[in-house]
Amino acid sequence: MNKQGLKIAVIGGGSSYTPEIVEGFINKYNEMPVRELWLVDIEEGKHKLEIVGELAKRMVEKAGLSIKVMLTLDRREAIAGADFVTTQMRVGLLAARRRDEHIPISHGVIGQETTGPGGMMKALRTVPVILDICRDIEELAPEAWLLNFTNPAGIVTEAVQKHTKVKTVGLCNSPINFQKFLAKEYGVAEREVLPEFVGINHLHWVTAAYVNGEDKLQEMIQGGKDYSATNVAAFDWDYDFLSSLGALPTYYLRYFYMTDVMFAEMKESMEKNDTRADVVSRVEAELFELYKDVNLTEKPKQLEKRGGAYYSEAAVNLMHSLYTDRRDIQTLNVRNNGIIPFLPEDASIEVNCVVTAQGPIALPLQRVPEQITGLLHAVKTYESLTIEAAITGDRGIALQAMVHHPLVPSIAVAKQLLDEMLLANKAYLPNFFAE
Amino acid sequence: MNKQGLKIAVIGGGSSYTPEIVEGFINKYNEMPVRELWLVDIEEGKHKLEIVGELAKRMVEKAGLSIKVMLTLDRREAIAGADFVTTQMRVGLLAARRRDEHIPISHGVIGQETTGPGGMMKALRTVPVILDICRDIEELAPEAWLLNFTNPAGIVTEAVQKHTKVKTVGLCNSPINFQKFLAKEYGVAEREVLPEFVGINHLHWVTAAYVNGEDKLQEMIQGGKDYSATNVAAFDWDYDFLSSLGALPTYYLRYFYMTDVMFAEMKESMEKNDTRADVVSRVEAELFELYKDVNLTEKPKQLEKRGGAYYSEAAVNLMHSLYTDRRDIQTLNVRNNGIIPFLPEDASIEVNCVVTAQGPIALPLQRVPEQITGLLHAVKTYESLTIEAAITGDRGIALQAMVHHPLVPSIAVAKQLLDEMLLANKAYLPNFFAE
Amino acid sequence: MNKQGLKIAVIGGGSSYTPEIVEGFINKYNEMPVRELWLVDIEEGKHKLEIVGELAKRMVEKAGLSIKVMLTLDRREAIAGADFVTTQMRVGLLAARRRDEHIPISHGVIGQETTGPGGMMKALRTVPVILDICRDIEELAPEAWLLNFTNPAGIVTEAVQKHTKVKTVGLCNSPINFQKFLAKEYGVAEREVLPEFVGINHLHWVTAAYVNGEDKLQEMIQGGKDYSATNVAAFDWDYDFLSSLGALPTYYLRYFYMTDVMFAEMKESMEKNDTRADVVSRVEAELFELYKDVNLTEKPKQLEKRGGAYYSEAAVNLMHSLYTDRRDIQTLNVRNNGIIPFLPEDASIEVNCVVTAQGPIALPLQRVPEQITGLLHAVKTYESLTIEAAITGDRGIALQAMVHHPLVPSIAVAKQLLDEMLLANKAYLPNFFAE
Amino acid sequence: MNKQGLKIAVIGGGSSYTPEIVEGFINKYNEMPVRELWLVDIEEGKHKLEIVGELAKRMVEKAGLSIKVMLTLDRREAIAGADFVTTQMRVGLLAARRRDEHIPISHGVIGQETTGPGGMMKALRTVPVILDICRDIEELAPEAWLLNFTNPAGIVTEAVQKHTKVKTVGLCNSPINFQKFLAKEYGVAEREVLPEFVGINHLHWVTAAYVNGEDKLQEMIQGGKDYSATNVAAFDWDYDFLSSLGALPTYYLRYFYMTDVMFAEMKESMEKNDTRADVVSRVEAELFELYKDVNLTEKPKQLEKRGGAYYSEAAVNLMHSLYTDRRDIQTLNVRNNGIIPFLPEDASIEVNCVVTAQGPIALPLQRVPEQITGLLHAVKTYESLTIEAAITGDRGIALQAMVHHPLVPSIAVAKQLLDEMLLANKAYLPNFFAE
Repeated sequence: MNKQGLKIAVIGGGSSYTPEIVEGFINKYNEMPVRELWLVDIEEGKHKLEIVGELAKRMVEKAGLSIKVMLTLDRREAIAGADFVTTQMRVGLLAARRRDEHIPISHGVIGQETTGPGGMMKALRTVPVILDICRDIEELAPEAWLLNFTNPAGIVTEAVQKHTKVKTVGLCNSPINFQKFLAKEYGVAEREVLPEFVGINHLHWVTAAYVNGEDKLQEMIQGGKDYSATNVAAFDWDYDFLSSLGALPTYYLRYFYMTDVMFAEMKESMEKNDTRADVVSRVEAELFELYKDVNLTEKPKQLEKRGGAYYSEAAVNLMHSLYTDRRDIQTLNVRNNGIIPFLPEDASIEVNCVVTAQGPIALPLQRVPEQITGLLHAVKTYESLTIEAAITGDRGIALQAMVHHPLVPSIAVAKQLLDEMLLANKAYLPNFFAE
Repeated sequence: MNKQGLKIAVIGGGSSYTPEIVEGFINKYNEMPVRELWLVDIEEGKHKLEIVGELAKRMVEKAGLSIKVMLTLDRREAIAGADFVTTQMRVGLLAARRRDEHIPISHGVIGQETTGPGGMMKALRTVPVILDICRDIEELAPEAWLLNFTNPAGIVTEAVQKHTKVKTVGLCNSPINFQKFLAKEYGVAEREVLPEFVGINHLHWVTAAYVNGEDKLQEMIQGGKDYSATNVAAFDWDYDFLSSLGALPTYYLRYFYMTDVMFAEMKESMEKNDTRADVVSRVEAELFELYKDVNLTEKPKQLEKRGGAYYSEAAVNLMHSLYTDRRDIQTLNVRNNGIIPFLPEDASIEVNCVVTAQGPIALPLQRVPEQITGLLHAVKTYESLTIEAAITGDRGIALQAMVHHPLVPSIAVAKQLLDEMLLANKAYLPNFFAE
Repeated sequence: MNKQGLKIAVIGGGSSYTPEIVEGFINKYNEMPVRELWLVDIEEGKHKLEIVGELAKRMVEKAGLSIKVMLTLDRREAIAGADFVTTQMRVGLLAARRRDEHIPISHGVIGQETTGPGGMMKALRTVPVILDICRDIEELAPEAWLLNFTNPAGIVTEAVQKHTKVKTVGLCNSPINFQKFLAKEYGVAEREVLPEFVGINHLHWVTAAYVNGEDKLQEMIQGGKDYSATNVAAFDWDYDFLSSLGALPTYYLRYFYMTDVMFAEMKESMEKNDTRADVVSRVEAELFELYKDVNLTEKPKQLEKRGGAYYSEAAVNLMHSLYTDRRDIQTLNVRNNGIIPFLPEDASIEVNCVVTAQGPIALPLQRVPEQITGLLHAVKTYESLTIEAAITGDRGIALQAMVHHPLVPSIAVAKQLLDEMLLANKAYLPNFFAE
Repeated sequence: MNKQGLKIAVIGGGSSYTPEIVEGFINKYNEMPVRELWLVDIEEGKHKLEIVGELAKRMVEKAGLSIKVMLTLDRREAIAGADFVTTQMRVGLLAARRRDEHIPISHGVIGQETTGPGGMMKALRTVPVILDICRDIEELAPEAWLLNFTNPAGIVTEAVQKHTKVKTVGLCNSPINFQKFLAKEYGVAEREVLPEFVGINHLHWVTAAYVNGEDKLQEMIQGGKDYSATNVAAFDWDYDFLSSLGALPTYYLRYFYMTDVMFAEMKESMEKNDTRADVVSRVEAELFELYKDVNLTEKPKQLEKRGGAYYSEAAVNLMHSLYTDRRDIQTLNVRNNGIIPFLPEDASIEVNCVVTAQGPIALPLQRVPEQITGLLHAVKTYESLTIEAAITGDRGIALQAMVHHPLVPSIAVAKQLLDEMLLANKAYLPNFFAE
């Protein structure tokens, strides 16, 4: 890596998240000096890129650092010679997300952008674009690390690992959030906690929660009832279920374990034009209004409402460990390599890793509860089939992926959804609609 | 084994199926002479045992063979020194089956006696009884083979393999039916076909269909549309789905792949008091009327309506191969031992085996299609958890089993079903309702 | 396959073994009619080809069968459209074998043509020739089965499986000999015995010996002392060793387990010009004298002295089962596919298989004794490295193969042997001596 | 662990190594305060215990620390409530080591105390004693960590893991020495290097040597010739061999790769009464003379001649990481758990681990070179069989272990060695010589 300071390329630099990562670079500057920060976007995103880019420049200036912030629509210029490339983009923009949510719900199925039929469409749109970016990296920055935040992060990361030579890691803020929660709950430093995660992106279970070397998981589950008053969002799980599960499921597992409740909520939201796409749309509009303010020189508090808290902390932590060979433990999306023995060797999984200068090394798991295996296997298989469908444009494989997804109730529904959703995404699916 | 002629014990000998197996022993007598055939039943089944037992005696007499048919309520007497023990029983009788079907349907869930909440209840009732029988076998006939037909056959077989020393094989008529279908379709002898089955009991896929050494699977799938007119029952699958699946799913997979259609059918049947339990109830009543006829000296044609065609042929074939070290290929429920690599070593699976005098040796599989892995894993995990629940009487484990089953839509529904169904089966679940 | 009668191509048809296989085809003619038998050899072997070929014709004529025996030096003509191709050849002839034996012995190491430094040289000479033959088969008879007898049969078979698309099976007469021995010992038909073999070609252990379904292995081991008088050649093993091993090692394992005794014998033989190469040389000369006799119309008794008893029976059995989809159990060299879990998936192993029309399916093993694992692993690794060396001509890999072989005592000795033996084989090793 | 300061029990506390570990505790006192240091020995070692124990007290006093040094012959008193137990003992004292070396050499076999017939005898003597100690730990200090230095460390550690509930780690100074060598060679801090070790105790290969994130292994091998002048002891390997091996073998692999040279050296040493046992005997006598000096208050320089440099640093580092949940990478002997896929799950292996408060987590390996597999597997199998023999006292298993060891040339030699050596060790092998 560049010892004189790093070159960073942020693909989708016009995102409302950008101030987060800029703040991260500023905070870690002493240990990991960034020389050039390239924010890249596409023509349609130019306006937002300029707004958020100018804010980034003001933030750097206020911090008194010599980070050069570059705004560009030329991706290759940004990637050339980069040490790190990150992606945070949405192919099809929020309009596509809206369809990912609305169409399934109108067929009685969970509609959500990271899993289910919606997540599948997002994957089909995104994978070809990411692989294009990877071709550029292979050519222009073959030693660069690609840090992928783009959802569905597990699928995207696995696609890159299977189909390119690019060194990549997938990242989610969910593990770091749990870690912070755990530390806070027990009143210790983050460094003193060590949860064990088993699973894949957005489908993991916490199977141990060490605090200063002692496992507090049972205590947390037992205390579940008491928590419920104050932590309703985090722990609204049936106590008997949690207790016999012997693990804490991630929030996203509610789609699978509480499908009826979640669907009802989503349906209601849809009827009120208040799905996540709608909400994010409004939040983003507000954020960009704030960003335009030339007096704003730091990340505004309101960004936290956007979701994605601590994303940038996770990303900057990872870069820092890769840069300094820090060998600390982080929870990342990496190649399975037998860590979860029943999943394919080349599947991406989300587990604890030691991060060395050569990359993350996934740590063997102490325990994979039997009662999570089938669900985990089914969703991972859906993911792998989706990657294959994205690359080949084969409708048969797409149908198998859809049918195999646990949230899709039958072949008949899968076919309807697939036909309607592929058509709705036609503009972004050249592989499926080749001449 | 007894070279002077075999001793066979049929547990549940009062079943309406008994004439089938008696016919099988008569037909194979030359290659495999049976000396004593013990039909065992419980007090409640005494009347039926006598009716069907007398028919059995008449059948043997007409055939002019020296098989002694013994009727008894003393299971231990029947088992002592037996070469083969078979089980064909229904703990809780048809009334329990009726509840297995009705309760789930009334909660919007498939209600069926071999899988789903209904199958689970049948398993919870049956496993303790089978293990009791195995204690007798261990003591009184340790060298005997236990051939298990009792559903859910995969669960019952796995329970015996995990928790006893009894040599056991699970049997289903579904594979032999497909084999006969295939032979007929191509106009060849049964000996000339060799389908490959991948999966577990009532959840398998045919992944190859060799006819004289040539794989006809693609042809069968391609021809699917044409078949559909004449073979609607066997092949009513969506063509696009089958074609991209690259395998033929067993009939029982309709519960999973066509859940909506199947549920609608079941609901309608329930409303008309015409579920399987209702139908079988009527058929059995008719059959026993026939059996009573002292002039009847052979298996009546009407038995075929009962379902279970070729069960006895499958069973007698297996005994024959074990007895003569025949080393032919049969499709059986046996210990996994790594044949399906992502399932536990000690899971029971349903695959092709070579049957030697030492027992069946499962054959490695040529191919496990990726798109079946998650579903297969989930159902097998539900099965293993169900066995654990049956043995421990642990409601938490039962809840995990229920939640993990792909036909159960949420924790909330699982809890309702579990509470209601355990209570409804209280008389047969001492482990769950111990003082 | 050709329903009008098979076309067989025998590469190395001028071998003294040929009358064996001709006798086999004659005996099995009714079940497996051969239409054309092509005997192929190279220019140097033309004279022998003519002698043995004429004998073959006389044998067929005497049997009154319509098998056309064709003699040719044009390998491609023989292979085109063949149903089976067999190989029985010796690259470098007996002179090379003599060097394979003498050079190692003169350095204090076992010198033998199927393993150790000698076997390695034979492999390096043979693999490129076999792969050439396979190119012809791929082009001219892509559906043909290649039955390989050429030693080292395990290495040659693995090389074909790894580097070509040819369907191949490796064959040795050692398993069939044990089976015949076992049947004879217990006075039963061969059909009634079933030994289990664990290992690779020329390095296997018999771990069970079923006779009519009962395992007689312990009895054979216990009786070992008594056997020793009459069966000294077959069972001259230390009783304590055999008893704690719990298995019967193949004859070839004497090189590893009794290295000192075997080396002393070999050294003595070498000093008397009486190694196997010398002996075979004399036997072959005698055989060809016999073959020349125009009155000879059958396989002469003296051929049995040549070694390789029942080779042809093994080969014809295998063809018969492939041709008729017989599904019997034979012991063959096939791809591992996880049967021996610690060896690579693509290693060739020698185990029991069910032979169907699609080829042999290796049967899972009941038991792999712990005390054979390291030796088995080491020799297989030597074999795989040898294949890589043969294909690349890389001296470094050849050195690793040699050092890894358990009969080679040190790096220093390995280097000496390698230098001297590669040079001695220069004419047959173009990959190692490219311009 | 005791937050008020640790209790340490050193079994074999009268060893000449003790000043090493005392120095370690003194140096790390700030991060890891030791409250009580118990030095335990047996009656025969009482005199040495007193000498070295008094030195330990003087060292602590000079350092001005409040570590209580306790000398005792009562092992249970020392173990009760300990946080760490370490073992450094020699059952049979140096006289037994002398026999371990001399008897094999007199039969033409490498005689060495950690592997081969000598290592096997040491294991047979030591395993029962260690398991006795573990019974005490299970009873009196169930939460304690047992750090095992006693050779053969791999065997001893595996025995404890297989047959007790004690939390244990095996330790060797060989990895830490390589790490220091690497750091020195490249002029960087030890923290900046990260070699990857593959193998088991005293039989490992370095397969990567990262220095600030860059792998220098090829460079080290290429430079091998130049090293040879100055580092002859460490790198006296054949260059062609090393280059095609693609890894650096540990010193102990010379016994296997250079058997002829090593045997010749050993034979010469034996004839001069100058084997390791002889040398250590003389060094120890000198050391205890020094230790007696009441003015000596620190570890004397001469201890370095004894061998075992940095043992105490390795041990104290490990305790420190376990105590503080440091999560650094150390090379330790731990349970395999699939890290080396062809070795048993429960084998002990020597690989890089992350050390957390819950213990070491072995890191997955980047690469296991094919050319080391057979040798590694053979020696590990010998080790596992040796443990079984030690526990059962079964001569048959001992014979299998001996025959399977790559340094033992034949069954005949194995039997001779076994008979003679078991007899020579009779006093220490009650399992083999029970009444």
